[in-house]
Amino acid sequence: MVRVGVVGYGTIGERIADGVAKQQDMELVGVVDVAPALPVRALVESGRGYPVYCGLPDRIPDMEAAGVPVEGTLDDMLEQVDMVCDATPPGIGMKNKEIYERHGVKATFQGGEKDAISPILFSSTANYDLAKDVDYIKLVSCNTTGMVRAVVAVDEAFGVEKAVATIVRRAADPSEIHKGPIDAAIPGKVPSHQATDLMRVMPHLDAMGFIITVPTTHGHVITMHVTLKQEIATEHALDVFRQGRRIRTFRIEDGFLSNTHIFDYLRDLGVPRADMFEVGIWEETVLAQGRDLYWIHNIPQEAIVIPENIDAVRARMGMQVDKWDAIDTTDRYLGIYKG
Amino acid sequence: MVRVGVVGYGTIGERIADGVAKQQDMELVGVVDVAPALPVRALVESGRGYPVYCGLPDRIPDMEAAGVPVEGTLDDMLEQVDMVCDATPPGIGMKNKEIYERHGVKATFQGGEKDAISPILFSSTANYDLAKDVDYIKLVSCNTTGMVRAVVAVDEAFGVEKAVATIVRRAADPSEIHKGPIDAAIPGKVPSHQATDLMRVMPHLDAMGFIITVPTTHGHVITMHVTLKQEIATEHALDVFRQGRRIRTFRIEDGFLSNTHIFDYLRDLGVPRADMFEVGIWEETVLAQGRDLYWIHNIPQEAIVIPENIDAVRARMGMQVDKWDAIDTTDRYLGIYKG
Amino acid sequence: MVRVGVVGYGTIGERIADGVAKQQDMELVGVVDVAPALPVRALVESGRGYPVYCGLPDRIPDMEAAGVPVEGTLDDMLEQVDMVCDATPPGIGMKNKEIYERHGVKATFQGGEKDAISPILFSSTANYDLAKDVDYIKLVSCNTTGMVRAVVAVDEAFGVEKAVATIVRRAADPSEIHKGPIDAAIPGKVPSHQATDLMRVMPHLDAMGFIITVPTTHGHVITMHVTLKQEIATEHALDVFRQGRRIRTFRIEDGFLSNTHIFDYLRDLGVPRADMFEVGIWEETVLAQGRDLYWIHNIPQEAIVIPENIDAVRARMGMQVDKWDAIDTTDRYLGIYKG
Amino acid sequence: MVRVGVVGYGTIGERIADGVAKQQDMELVGVVDVAPALPVRALVESGRGYPVYCGLPDRIPDMEAAGVPVEGTLDDMLEQVDMVCDATPPGIGMKNKEIYERHGVKATFQGGEKDAISPILFSSTANYDLAKDVDYIKLVSCNTTGMVRAVVAVDEAFGVEKAVATIVRRAADPSEIHKGPIDAAIPGKVPSHQATDLMRVMPHLDAMGFIITVPTTHGHVITMHVTLKQEIATEHALDVFRQGRRIRTFRIEDGFLSNTHIFDYLRDLGVPRADMFEVGIWEETVLAQGRDLYWIHNIPQEAIVIPENIDAVRARMGMQVDKWDAIDTTDRYLGIYKG
Repeated sequence: MVRVGVVGYGTIGERIADGVAKQQDMELVGVVDVAPALPVRALVESGRGYPVYCGLPDRIPDMEAAGVPVEGTLDDMLEQVDMVCDATPPGIGMKNKEIYERHGVKATFQGGEKDAISPILFSSTANYDLAKDVDYIKLVSCNTTGMVRAVVAVDEAFGVEKAVATIVRRAADPSEIHKGPIDAAIPGKVPSHQATDLMRVMPHLDAMGFIITVPTTHGHVITMHVTLKQEIATEHALDVFRQGRRIRTFRIEDGFLSNTHIFDYLRDLGVPRADMFEVGIWEETVLAQGRDLYWIHNIPQEAIVIPENIDAVRARMGMQVDKWDAIDTTDRYLGIYKG
Repeated sequence: MVRVGVVGYGTIGERIADGVAKQQDMELVGVVDVAPALPVRALVESGRGYPVYCGLPDRIPDMEAAGVPVEGTLDDMLEQVDMVCDATPPGIGMKNKEIYERHGVKATFQGGEKDAISPILFSSTANYDLAKDVDYIKLVSCNTTGMVRAVVAVDEAFGVEKAVATIVRRAADPSEIHKGPIDAAIPGKVPSHQATDLMRVMPHLDAMGFIITVPTTHGHVITMHVTLKQEIATEHALDVFRQGRRIRTFRIEDGFLSNTHIFDYLRDLGVPRADMFEVGIWEETVLAQGRDLYWIHNIPQEAIVIPENIDAVRARMGMQVDKWDAIDTTDRYLGIYKG
Repeated sequence: MVRVGVVGYGTIGERIADGVAKQQDMELVGVVDVAPALPVRALVESGRGYPVYCGLPDRIPDMEAAGVPVEGTLDDMLEQVDMVCDATPPGIGMKNKEIYERHGVKATFQGGEKDAISPILFSSTANYDLAKDVDYIKLVSCNTTGMVRAVVAVDEAFGVEKAVATIVRRAADPSEIHKGPIDAAIPGKVPSHQATDLMRVMPHLDAMGFIITVPTTHGHVITMHVTLKQEIATEHALDVFRQGRRIRTFRIEDGFLSNTHIFDYLRDLGVPRADMFEVGIWEETVLAQGRDLYWIHNIPQEAIVIPENIDAVRARMGMQVDKWDAIDTTDRYLGIYKG
Repeated sequence: MVRVGVVGYGTIGERIADGVAKQQDMELVGVVDVAPALPVRALVESGRGYPVYCGLPDRIPDMEAAGVPVEGTLDDMLEQVDMVCDATPPGIGMKNKEIYERHGVKATFQGGEKDAISPILFSSTANYDLAKDVDYIKLVSCNTTGMVRAVVAVDEAFGVEKAVATIVRRAADPSEIHKGPIDAAIPGKVPSHQATDLMRVMPHLDAMGFIITVPTTHGHVITMHVTLKQEIATEHALDVFRQGRRIRTFRIEDGFLSNTHIFDYLRDLGVPRADMFEVGIWEETVLAQGRDLYWIHNIPQEAIVIPENIDAVRARMGMQVDKWDAIDTTDRYLGIYKG
């Protein structure tokens, strides 16, 4: 049993915690936060029972006043874990890293953290092996995570030379009410860093990207154009996507008219938080013409990076040697395994 | 066991079905729809196992082609039920009523249906007894449902003379993507029908209302100003709301900064669909000054009418004679009982 | 000729400048800002020709590099003016006040500034006379400005005892893209400060208010409920509003379905910036019942405070003794006079 | 003097009318509509003085009751014109065409009309000559209009082989309040018709396009990737865009952070309706890499097609033989000529 802690119990952290708790070969030792924000309150009210540690000892009374039982401090938790997944806001991870080092604890960090925090940029479907010897592992952002999965699937099947993406970025998560815009589309300078990131994890690739931020909350939507090493038919690409790991296809004709329809469908399925771990591809947007392949996919930004965080633990802790073996194990426990 | 069917398996119908399925003294015989829309597909994929009937016999092949096992027609289901909850789009209920009459089946109808469909306008916390002898029962809309609950609680405690409401109406449910506005606030003519409805179910009350439609999806937010028969202190009103049935209070200070925070919290709790059956009242918006009482409440428009639909079945089918007995029974099975 | 300067050339400041420039008994000496932001660039490109002064001497090169001819520093302008309208971001006005005092220059400040900046809270239709002897005058916010106009009109006609408002607040101006929410309604604690402000400028009034922030950009929409000293008919109230100064009525039936329709109509009229100085009242929302009067009005937040800023100059500089004389003069030059 | 009429006085029609009125070699004979909607009311209130004709004789009393002086019927106007610009809602143009034919009047139709209405698809910068002999001319949609201008400019300078666009489509004009989505991104099937249209007006080009609809109102934003026939440097492309006709460049660094900032800047300039006839290109999004050229442009959907409508009149009426001669003439009168 690999012992894992989660530091930063916000939108990403709470989902990593649930994901780790489902891994039968990992033990979720506890979660750390610094205030009784809503995710922490929900954790208590839901009865999930993860031990809560407080990252700032002088805030323990605040948390207890809010009815949150506090098991101890960050240091207390670090004494009991092999590795942590750090999902704190950008900039905090860099400070936490020193504390982790002091305790000899390994860690993953999220895409918002500075590159300097890690010698590698990790996305398991592309470069699982890289994390085997690295104690502090930075993952790519949610957008890049989804792109990597889809592009790796196509690359392994047909060979990819170049990828050009336009990210239509949801400006905020649902309850990030202080973030706009309300009625504007915001272009980013070209190239967007997501393109650079894609090339860092898939260095044989030529990649370029646009980003435009829009007033939506239920998922980034990305248009993809890749140049293949061979001509294929649309149906070949569809087969790859339908079978691809951590990829889920939807049909507009079935009623999946928007990213919000996917979200709502997951609500109807009864999936916790209506979370989706997979990147979603609309089948009617997949089109192959000669060596050009086009598609549109949806990035459920709150949940998509969870599997890769768990994979990083598997890689570093030596739980699985083989990439797909690790990925399949994670996915089986998460309930998204495609046999 | 009272046998219940649900006709119209959309946003409201699928939630009524789940609610009825939880009532241990009711049997959900089946649900009816006319096409394999997303809620029907989710029903199949989720494995909930409710029998599906098809409202239009010539559409059965469409549903079966989509992988939906069809048990039979609307007529087939009506042969097996005592009562249906009709949650079809406005206008359809009126046509269905004739079919229900032919089968001797009683029914509830939702607030969007024409008043002529029923001799009464029903909201159980206000006028449970009215439904005992009425075969076709029209419920008030979601906004009025929430207002009635809060006003009844205050009225029973202190006596209410007059109520003035401003409904800040969410323009669409999350996946109703064809509805706007995108960037506008739309005033309704004064008075809004919700005020009239409040007086119809609480005839001793003087009521008036404004409605303004805005580009949000996660709940109507209503400001309330009631004139009481006596002077009270704010704390008295808070006590009433905290204990009031189907009312849930939230504190802005705890992080419930908006209606979307409530929605997100329910996601974190792991509640199916993040649904809330209660009307939500923000505690810091409750203020009593002499005989004036002010507050703001949130109407989770997708789920709030579910309990009252079930109550209507209880009333008409004679399952409970006493109003609060019926309400408590419904709530116990729904898991929202306040002891 | 009263010599006026404008400090802070953003959304409000640029509109005050245009308004002052139209007053034939005032001279717009210049405008002050600290960077070549878009309003300053537009001033240059438009050829309006107002002299630009730079509030931070070391930023002059930045402005000149952007093609903005700089006449001098803030101090330079203050030597030439009798009074300034300060429309800087909240908090800056307090610092500027010391500079104005040093130069013996009087000033208006906007509603976002701290109350301590001025011994009075000013809104000309309610308390014009108060500003006659006060060198530093704080105006009420845009919401209160509009409420004061409408309530004063009704008060002078019928007598008002109490007013209850629900402000459906536009969360951001069109290009304030960093502000949200995107999909949420945010309740404020009760009472909102706008109610307190209304009582401060109309002290004989009992006032209370709610505020809910929503994702729109084209105007605050406010529902009003006032208790009169006498019974009236709806038509009486409509007459008062149709004739009321700085009030403009619209009919939903004519196509003014939302606040954005008003904005768009002003675009079609060819009005500069599609600005409206008046508070807009939808006629079909005006309803009198006994002593209760209800209506909904729209606050064009970018422009509504301009006339009152100019009035404040008139009051303090002794340009007109009589309130309505001053208001009519301002309005004539602005082109919104109702004879 | 070529005599021109405008049929359909909505968002596009009112702008065509203003544009035609500015052409000193054209006479705006009148405008036609069927109801006193807001644009017609604004026409009257603004004092522009264009004669109004009523498309449905039995609606004349409605228009007159709204204070709109009616000069006559559609037939009356058609007797006096050489050509009309038809800007009626999709589907109406096809019916109107028969009436135009009866009167021997030529016409332009907008991009929403069916292709069958015209033997050609017109966009003057690409295929001006085509319209010389065609009586009924269909223009491309606003998105394609902007793309054609930018791609033609690049094509004439460097040669273009292929173009791939992602259109981030504003879902509605500001006052189209019934249209959504509120919080969703809606992918279109691939390819989008805009790609097909681009190839129809530039047949030597290989083009492909994505479209995603989002909740904004102030302009479509499009990412472009074109493959050139030669390698260029970014600065070369910038030069082409800066000098390109009906193209306007903006710098993010100057404060043009979004499409709404462009709109707001035009308001500040005092431009009527804040309309922009040019396609807007953000300079920091222009990037050349070898033979690949990338950029993002903004389509002000309300106004961008006006110049091309006027060009079509010039072509068909033989006013100018040469394409750029015609375009420059239109632009001079519109005030957007680049010398």
